[in-house]
Amino acid sequence: MQDLIQQLHNFNQNRDWEQFHSPKNLSMALSVEAAELMEHFQWLTQDESRTLPDDKKEKVEEEIGDVLLYLLNLSDKLDIDPTEAARAKLRKNADKYPAHKAKGSATKYTEL
Amino acid sequence: MQDLIQQLHNFNQNRDWEQFHSPKNLSMALSVEAAELMEHFQWLTQDESRTLPDDKKEKVEEEIGDVLLYLLNLSDKLDIDPTEAARAKLRKNADKYPAHKAKGSATKYTEL
Amino acid sequence: MQDLIQQLHNFNQNRDWEQFHSPKNLSMALSVEAAELMEHFQWLTQDESRTLPDDKKEKVEEEIGDVLLYLLNLSDKLDIDPTEAARAKLRKNADKYPAHKAKGSATKYTEL
Amino acid sequence: MQDLIQQLHNFNQNRDWEQFHSPKNLSMALSVEAAELMEHFQWLTQDESRTLPDDKKEKVEEEIGDVLLYLLNLSDKLDIDPTEAARAKLRKNADKYPAHKAKGSATKYTEL
Repeated sequence: MQDLIQQLHNFNQNRDWEQFHSPKNLSMALSVEAAELMEHFQWLTQDESRTLPDDKKEKVEEEIGDVLLYLLNLSDKLDIDPTEAARAKLRKNADKYPAHKAKGSATKYTEL
Repeated sequence: MQDLIQQLHNFNQNRDWEQFHSPKNLSMALSVEAAELMEHFQWLTQDESRTLPDDKKEKVEEEIGDVLLYLLNLSDKLDIDPTEAARAKLRKNADKYPAHKAKGSATKYTEL
Repeated sequence: MQDLIQQLHNFNQNRDWEQFHSPKNLSMALSVEAAELMEHFQWLTQDESRTLPDDKKEKVEEEIGDVLLYLLNLSDKLDIDPTEAARAKLRKNADKYPAHKAKGSATKYTEL
Repeated sequence: MQDLIQQLHNFNQNRDWEQFHSPKNLSMALSVEAAELMEHFQWLTQDESRTLPDDKKEKVEEEIGDVLLYLLNLSDKLDIDPTEAARAKLRKNADKYPAHKAKGSATKYTEL
């Protein structure tokens, strides 16, 4: 992943794009890409979303790539390690949603 | 990262949450988390977004964790490797936005 | 609706909030509110989403209010009439998706 | 606006699209359109966002139309009056953010 961040750096510097990449702007771009990813699923049933045809899966894969690229770019600008952030959040979620209380329920933890 | 995906699996199975995690639903959750991340930046100037106070940075870090967790969960359900998807997308972007044409411009590649 | 925009103006001026309300920032806030609205539906089945319990419906109603407030605020800043924009878009959609071709299909018009 | 909702009904029924329009799906489509609207602003400065060139403004206008169409469609399905919801939310916000406390601050009301 470190290697990917380095490639991303080079890519953006070669295009003189760092000037546009404030954390604010990158958070917008990340949100836009997440929406483009979601767009592929908006008219599908949940079952259909589990078995995508090949051409759709390819497009979804590209959008997943875009989301990760912007997430890495944003994290890098803020000097945050996204993998460590995910680990920490998972530990926190384990406290917020104890297995015996949350079992089988999608209720938000605040309502448990 | 593989290790993180395994932890995420265990976390969700212990809570019987896999039933809610269709790719459709996960794409929604990912988009919601990306928006929660963006919310921290919505009233900031671009400059302010570059120098977050510590308490705000902590919250942003949590949201980055959430975005990555849902991205990994969704990718896993679709049997897509997000890092490989990002690598492939970066190669594709290099073709779409040749450095000499894109230099210093945020114009969408379709308009180049 | 004109009356509502006037109330919104007064509300924001009394709080000296106009300084934050650039179209860029308002587009972010609108997107955040649309995500908060969607969050209420993310773990529901489509059928469940058609018959919301009263307390959930109340929260959804509030989020719908928020989305419309930001849409009106943004439109006002850009001197765009949102109702007229919707009418024009509906006419355009009628051309893009002729009834006989689009019937029963959610395929994007570009793929028709 | 009532007239616009009626046109939207006819448009969707002629295309047999009501089957796709569960509140869940419509909340996704609304969120996607809000992101497409935001995309036009993502690389602009706040000042640039206040003075859009004509061709960009036209595209923004279309996206505003799309957002309102989906908001009306979703509200209609849930039997919610969006204008009334906005009015109620504005009253609620007046309580949450008293002018003398909120003046000039973008701090979230929970932190006031």
